[in-house]
Amino acid sequence: MVKKPNILFIMADQLRADYLGCNGHPTIKTPNIDALAARGVNFTRAYCQAPVCGPSRMSFYTGRYASSHGASYNNVPLRIGEKTLGDYLRPEGYRVALVGKTHMRRDDEGMQRLGIDVQSSRGVLVSECGFEPFERDDGLHPDQSVNPDLKYNDYLRSKGYEGKNPWHDYANSALGADGEVVSGWYMRNSHLAARVREEDSETAYSTRRAMEFIEQSKGSPWCLHLSYIKPHWPYMAPAPYHQMYGKDDILPVVRSEQERAQPHPVVGAFMGHPESTAFAQDEVRERVIPTYMGLITQLDEHVGRLVAFLEQQGELDNTLIVLTSDHGDYLGDHWLGEKELFHDASARIPMILVDPRPEADATRGVRSDRLVEAIDLVPTFVESAGGGNFEHVLEGRSLLALIRGESAAQWRSHAFSEADYAWRPARTELGLAADEARAFMVTDGRWKYVYYEHFSPQLFDLVADPGELRDLASNPEYAEVGEELAEALNRWFRERKMRITISNSQVAASTGSAHKRGYLFGLW
Amino acid sequence: MVKKPNILFIMADQLRADYLGCNGHPTIKTPNIDALAARGVNFTRAYCQAPVCGPSRMSFYTGRYASSHGASYNNVPLRIGEKTLGDYLRPEGYRVALVGKTHMRRDDEGMQRLGIDVQSSRGVLVSECGFEPFERDDGLHPDQSVNPDLKYNDYLRSKGYEGKNPWHDYANSALGADGEVVSGWYMRNSHLAARVREEDSETAYSTRRAMEFIEQSKGSPWCLHLSYIKPHWPYMAPAPYHQMYGKDDILPVVRSEQERAQPHPVVGAFMGHPESTAFAQDEVRERVIPTYMGLITQLDEHVGRLVAFLEQQGELDNTLIVLTSDHGDYLGDHWLGEKELFHDASARIPMILVDPRPEADATRGVRSDRLVEAIDLVPTFVESAGGGNFEHVLEGRSLLALIRGESAAQWRSHAFSEADYAWRPARTELGLAADEARAFMVTDGRWKYVYYEHFSPQLFDLVADPGELRDLASNPEYAEVGEELAEALNRWFRERKMRITISNSQVAASTGSAHKRGYLFGLW
Repeated sequence: MVKKPNILFIMADQLRADYLGCNGHPTIKTPNIDALAARGVNFTRAYCQAPVCGPSRMSFYTGRYASSHGASYNNVPLRIGEKTLGDYLRPEGYRVALVGKTHMRRDDEGMQRLGIDVQSSRGVLVSECGFEPFERDDGLHPDQSVNPDLKYNDYLRSKGYEGKNPWHDYANSALGADGEVVSGWYMRNSHLAARVREEDSETAYSTRRAMEFIEQSKGSPWCLHLSYIKPHWPYMAPAPYHQMYGKDDILPVVRSEQERAQPHPVVGAFMGHPESTAFAQDEVRERVIPTYMGLITQLDEHVGRLVAFLEQQGELDNTLIVLTSDHGDYLGDHWLGEKELFHDASARIPMILVDPRPEADATRGVRSDRLVEAIDLVPTFVESAGGGNFEHVLEGRSLLALIRGESAAQWRSHAFSEADYAWRPARTELGLAADEARAFMVTDGRWKYVYYEHFSPQLFDLVADPGELRDLASNPEYAEVGEELAEALNRWFRERKMRITISNSQVAASTGSAHKRGYLFGLW
Repeated sequence: MVKKPNILFIMADQLRADYLGCNGHPTIKTPNIDALAARGVNFTRAYCQAPVCGPSRMSFYTGRYASSHGASYNNVPLRIGEKTLGDYLRPEGYRVALVGKTHMRRDDEGMQRLGIDVQSSRGVLVSECGFEPFERDDGLHPDQSVNPDLKYNDYLRSKGYEGKNPWHDYANSALGADGEVVSGWYMRNSHLAARVREEDSETAYSTRRAMEFIEQSKGSPWCLHLSYIKPHWPYMAPAPYHQMYGKDDILPVVRSEQERAQPHPVVGAFMGHPESTAFAQDEVRERVIPTYMGLITQLDEHVGRLVAFLEQQGELDNTLIVLTSDHGDYLGDHWLGEKELFHDASARIPMILVDPRPEADATRGVRSDRLVEAIDLVPTFVESAGGGNFEHVLEGRSLLALIRGESAAQWRSHAFSEADYAWRPARTELGLAADEARAFMVTDGRWKYVYYEHFSPQLFDLVADPGELRDLASNPEYAEVGEELAEALNRWFRERKMRITISNSQVAASTGSAHKRGYLFGLW
């Protein structure tokens, strides 16, 4: 029997696809991630299923679109019963664990209704989105709600960083000009060095925890979700990464006066959010983005260490490695900050997949422009692990055929992403009820169409206008293109997989069998 | 505090809406059901959410469309975690029980995955679709699979009906011309009297079991789902009901030569099923339908006894009564037998609602042509019981506003129904895969539009052509009508309620609150 590969599923939070050397960034240094791309396949048109942490991750972990798993925004509990990666891999003999962030919120009402004790081992798995929480840390710990048992804070205190919340006071704070402590929550401070030594920073800590897990897990195959907290805000890096880049190193801003003068209503409402008005200022961009880049380079160095560690442990040739992110970061593009909408800065994600097995040799170093989705990872991992066929539940597709260079003429023609912005001020600004703030993106690679509930759509030509600056939706010349994409979206809605309790082959096997089973209806 | 009303939720299986006196049938005798209509509101345009037992019932019991709850056909397990009527009413102090059929199939894989013991009291409720199984009996017991512990068979044996399966051998068999036992599974025998005394027939037995439940349940409010097995096939009635009607009493067949000569491909494939070729013969219709009518009149008499019993128990003035069915029966109309497709014979259902409370006095005896759906019952019951607002989960709407004569200008504009015919020979006949045999109906009351995956749609004018004999979909004159209904269907898909773990008011309360909770993103 073929040995089952380990799976190292690395996610960087809020990492824009184009802020990697291997994706063409002219100044950023990401040699270790670039080396992964050279060893595997770099998917250049990968999209997350929702450009916000929570729903995007629930799609990564369930293999299903946000409209199917239902956790449409941060802190919406994932409904009890929704299967996750661990449910598929554990029966294949895998230890499936987490280091870092998931943004999972457990479904307390559902667990209580079904009598599942949150303290039981099963209850913990259900609560943690199917992952054994080797180290769960969502990476955002305001003083108001910091968990007194946060392991990273215990670690920091053990290293001499005192106080109730050293995560904030050291790892995400700096010293101001007068020696006062200033908070990383405020972007004006993001050029300063974090008060933490690099080796004690979140990225370094998570990497070491991953190594501990790998060391502990010899003997049986494992799947580790190493889910880095950075380069997500607070934008604050430890020395020397805080001053590795300057304002001349950042990508030129992608925006037009026309976008701001006559915005789409929903995009315009987002432009009014504080993160957007902040990032609209060059001063903010020029201070934040170099630190964002420093955090990425720091992360890259830790990826390098981890790969070296795998090699030293003798596991590198037996470990499938993925590097991706949950969504991008507008960083001022389109007069927007953060994410949530569907421009490539927000919805496109890096997706590098290294399969060490010989079957993938033919595609090493390939850049693939196939349309790939976050939901493709669960089926990829299940197939790699030798698991069964769950096509009646999983809405993604295994990437193994692509990385093995097999003909994939039947690959998907469209990719999709969704937004539920009910939690954002834009909703009330636009006068929408809590269940009306929905938008949906479909792209065929050439065109991108965004459907907004209650508002007109948007249409961009990704080839002629890769910056997505010219909305063609109201141009009659492109009416047919828009209609085709709208119909693709309608088809997608019809095809959501809801009949998840019975497989297609079970259905096929029982078609027409009622009479054989003795249900003699309709016979004379 | 207002006393919480009992809820008597009566369902007759496969009862066509137009086979009731109060719905205009010229010969059938249903005085007791007609009396309910006179005491309450008779909804004349009610639709089931799927014209097949299992998915229709799962919609009745969850308050959600089949595409939302996912149990798209008979014997598709209802996914673990999907909330049912009992989950809503039990916290309001109700005893929620079942006598009869649900067609519920439990989600064994999901229960095992979540560690729910099927023998535990919670496991039983989950297995039984939220109902306490006071008497579960799905009413179909082929010899091949009859449950040796079937209570009704125990009852029959206690009354002297011997054998392994007296359900078949007595309640659903008859004596032939030569005194031989002939089976009710074969429609040629449906004019014969069942070998069971009327008082021991399924309908009589279920009614007595309901009375026993009601007697036992004094003191706290109850919701009883009395789910009669008849007039569903086997079409066999005990004397005297087997000969109460003759061929002159049945409704004229609704079909045209044009329908058969140039059928829609999907409808044509269904015309080839054995039940359709059988019912296409007048001989079959004239033998079966009088018995179908006899079973309905028998059921009506038991409804009358039950109402009298409630009155005698002093509960009638405190009991909300519903009479409905899960779907209709083609009975040869449109050259079809059984159900599954969307003509009114199949998809329209009777829906009579009697609210004894004074607030409903203004609408007693009213016939309402509002578009009502099966999924409206759960919200109606929850509101009647004083339960909370579950509009983020429930896709139906409470009917209380309508029966209280309140203005309902904002009532729904369209009703929907769905089919997944993957299990039927029509699927293979049409060359479809197991997940492709889908169809969807939308009606605004005037027009009915049916969308078939992979085939052209159908469009009927319900006013000019109430028999639905002239498909207008390919007539360019009606293109705009078709487009409007197609768009209503697309909107419906977009609005499926999947974000079920957090209420709209919780969402609204947290809109824009991230900064207040200490998540200071986007601030300079």
